[in-house]
Amino acid sequence: MLLNCDLGESFGAWKMGLDEEVMPHINMANIACGFHAGDADVMANTLKLAKQHKVQIGAHPSYPDQQGFGRRSMALSASELTNCLHYQIAALEGMAKVQGLSLSYVKPHGALYNDMMLNEQLLTSVMSAVAHYPSPLKLMILATADAKKHQKMADTLGVKLILEAFADRQYTDEGLLVSRQLAGSVHNEQALIEQVKQLLADGSVTTRSGKKLILDADSLCVHGDNPAGIALIQQIKLLCKR
Amino acid sequence: MLLNCDLGESFGAWKMGLDEEVMPHINMANIACGFHAGDADVMANTLKLAKQHKVQIGAHPSYPDQQGFGRRSMALSASELTNCLHYQIAALEGMAKVQGLSLSYVKPHGALYNDMMLNEQLLTSVMSAVAHYPSPLKLMILATADAKKHQKMADTLGVKLILEAFADRQYTDEGLLVSRQLAGSVHNEQALIEQVKQLLADGSVTTRSGKKLILDADSLCVHGDNPAGIALIQQIKLLCKR
Amino acid sequence: MLLNCDLGESFGAWKMGLDEEVMPHINMANIACGFHAGDADVMANTLKLAKQHKVQIGAHPSYPDQQGFGRRSMALSASELTNCLHYQIAALEGMAKVQGLSLSYVKPHGALYNDMMLNEQLLTSVMSAVAHYPSPLKLMILATADAKKHQKMADTLGVKLILEAFADRQYTDEGLLVSRQLAGSVHNEQALIEQVKQLLADGSVTTRSGKKLILDADSLCVHGDNPAGIALIQQIKLLCKR
Amino acid sequence: MLLNCDLGESFGAWKMGLDEEVMPHINMANIACGFHAGDADVMANTLKLAKQHKVQIGAHPSYPDQQGFGRRSMALSASELTNCLHYQIAALEGMAKVQGLSLSYVKPHGALYNDMMLNEQLLTSVMSAVAHYPSPLKLMILATADAKKHQKMADTLGVKLILEAFADRQYTDEGLLVSRQLAGSVHNEQALIEQVKQLLADGSVTTRSGKKLILDADSLCVHGDNPAGIALIQQIKLLCKR
Repeated sequence: MLLNCDLGESFGAWKMGLDEEVMPHINMANIACGFHAGDADVMANTLKLAKQHKVQIGAHPSYPDQQGFGRRSMALSASELTNCLHYQIAALEGMAKVQGLSLSYVKPHGALYNDMMLNEQLLTSVMSAVAHYPSPLKLMILATADAKKHQKMADTLGVKLILEAFADRQYTDEGLLVSRQLAGSVHNEQALIEQVKQLLADGSVTTRSGKKLILDADSLCVHGDNPAGIALIQQIKLLCKR
Repeated sequence: MLLNCDLGESFGAWKMGLDEEVMPHINMANIACGFHAGDADVMANTLKLAKQHKVQIGAHPSYPDQQGFGRRSMALSASELTNCLHYQIAALEGMAKVQGLSLSYVKPHGALYNDMMLNEQLLTSVMSAVAHYPSPLKLMILATADAKKHQKMADTLGVKLILEAFADRQYTDEGLLVSRQLAGSVHNEQALIEQVKQLLADGSVTTRSGKKLILDADSLCVHGDNPAGIALIQQIKLLCKR
Repeated sequence: MLLNCDLGESFGAWKMGLDEEVMPHINMANIACGFHAGDADVMANTLKLAKQHKVQIGAHPSYPDQQGFGRRSMALSASELTNCLHYQIAALEGMAKVQGLSLSYVKPHGALYNDMMLNEQLLTSVMSAVAHYPSPLKLMILATADAKKHQKMADTLGVKLILEAFADRQYTDEGLLVSRQLAGSVHNEQALIEQVKQLLADGSVTTRSGKKLILDADSLCVHGDNPAGIALIQQIKLLCKR
Repeated sequence: MLLNCDLGESFGAWKMGLDEEVMPHINMANIACGFHAGDADVMANTLKLAKQHKVQIGAHPSYPDQQGFGRRSMALSASELTNCLHYQIAALEGMAKVQGLSLSYVKPHGALYNDMMLNEQLLTSVMSAVAHYPSPLKLMILATADAKKHQKMADTLGVKLILEAFADRQYTDEGLLVSRQLAGSVHNEQALIEQVKQLLADGSVTTRSGKKLILDADSLCVHGDNPAGIALIQQIKLLCKR
């Protein structure tokens, strides 16, 4: 089970996330591409850090909304979305090549990620954009109860998927994340560790309603915003290595 | 003598330049990368047009100043400039690859172009940024009286130069462009045609002071902002073919 | 019947609209505030032009989306929307005061305008934002079949409405504009003039389905994007003066 | 001696500065206006905080350079600068009025501040922009050896000055701040307290070269970026009250 984390989300003079502390403990770095966070300088620094720790590099593209941190849905046309994804992926890929690195995958960010998991047409656009990008990139999406359908869509379009699960978030019966606005949607430390153990033990989570849901996840999303988060990542890493 | 032209300078709902009319008549398209003009949609469309007319593609990166169209000098550090150039070049290169195209060269835009021709340290930063970019890109700069020095700098850094001359602009004795603010700095049609003829005949221009200056130019910069400009490009093209 | 027109939609080096040609013929200028179009320089110039022709000034605020020209829906929270409106209104109001001018009204732009006419909660947020702005500004919205309900909402919140009709657009039976994507949704010149005459004669339009719909409009929205548009505005103005 | 501090420099999801901890201890809040930092939401929150602690409000406008945090010189024309200042001042003033507050003064930010202290033409443009703004705003500039000349310029243009000194920065003999790049340019705690005491005792600082320089300062600039900074502000405040 590989650990992935959103990184490179500082911008200009503003620092976000403990990238230097997180990088040694993760396997895959989802790096912001300048549309919701990150800028050319932050990207160069984050890539350097990923290189140093031999971490896989993924593009973390977003709707074009810096002030909203890519967290607000935006009604882009399919062609606008495609171009907007290609631009961001390309910018990161080229900057990675400058440091002798290759891009491995794409993980959409924030509202775009949420929207594509709810809207099949949007997911098709995203898959298609990744499939048409000339380098062989995988697409990371949420492992849900619809994973088989998503896999078929991806096969048709010729893109390989990475299915990810979340350590800290409660799930609906459909395998979607329970809205942060609901009480109990974000796990405390104990519940988080339990969820990770269950995922590692039999590839399942227990949903908000108490059902057991199989999520065939390839990667686990972790967060490194604060020292407590880093400590948790270290615990999760140990569990994964057992 | 190859004709180059700045293209892809529309942005969002705003149209600039007669790209469709110009593209058939030029050899090299300097395509904006989203920092002074252009956006992902405009870039995709411009690349498509370049592909259709088999025109060489160059990145036309700028200082990050959309509202000022990259025409205002900005005090970027060497590392900021390098990253800012790599980001823009990479974005265009990746989007070109999506269409099966390769990037050939880089031509800095506006104030960055002017500043680097006046400031050797800045020119070194730009040359170095292009040299360190993993694809073998040439750098287009102004052919001036200092061309030999520039060539040596480029050789040292390992970057190939494309030297360009301007059809429509009056020259100083140093081979720099006379400021647009001075009367007579932008040629009328007749003077422009004369300058092109002289450049083609013996690789020289007659400067504002009346001196003859040898400019060993590889390419001629033309403008396609309006129908009169297009007509001029066609005339220039005929002169070049003779 | 007062004529209103969206103006000041140039941005940096990009020109949009024939503001100088339109301004003499209209009564109310909806001026972009920098979030979808316009910038501090464009705003200063547009205000100067409005002053010269003694045209009423309205703020034309938008979702924060320059590349999309404010035409893409964005999911802003009520407080984000309020602050975003206040910022834009304030910027224009202060710049108007610099020239000795006062702001009269607010007309939301593009996707925000369309969204608020379809979403009562959003309309309430917009009305409330205008009501809480310290200067006594009116709010311009679309005159629809729901005008009475809108009037009540506005009365409750303490904001005065300006109801506008469109000269060039076909209407649904609900008094909304027929989507531009449908054939016949944008009138040709003759149909446009007919619609204006009918609006002036008895305050009604004939909808796409052929019904007669009363629209108690205070203002008519016209467009000055091209010379044909200017000629039409002049015709409409003559009709209004009869 | 009034304490002023740069505040409201968060942006979107990025937090900067301990505004809530600083606000109770200062007299004047220099609030970012969205061009180098701040956005409509941050501005509304910062104004609310200033209101709560009855702190004077100043606009803290900048060159338009968010990614560079307004710290990079930009070559704006006089009219671009004027419009850019008016826009920012107006946006903050209107948002302040929404909360029943008035704007008291303007303090340019970062590179603009430094540039205007070195370039008399630029300082004249800034003074003139503030003088032409319709509300009676003061302009905060650096108290230097040229204070009398600056006062004359301001008198001619009809703008009142607030002269500020820095607690933590070493001075040149001209009363300018020694570049941060030089060792010793930023005082340690002890040297800072000494400089404040000397300023309060006889309105002077001891320059880098050891000379005593009279700075007739009205306000002292303090920083609240971290807990140590807050503690220092509290110490300085006590010194000022003696």
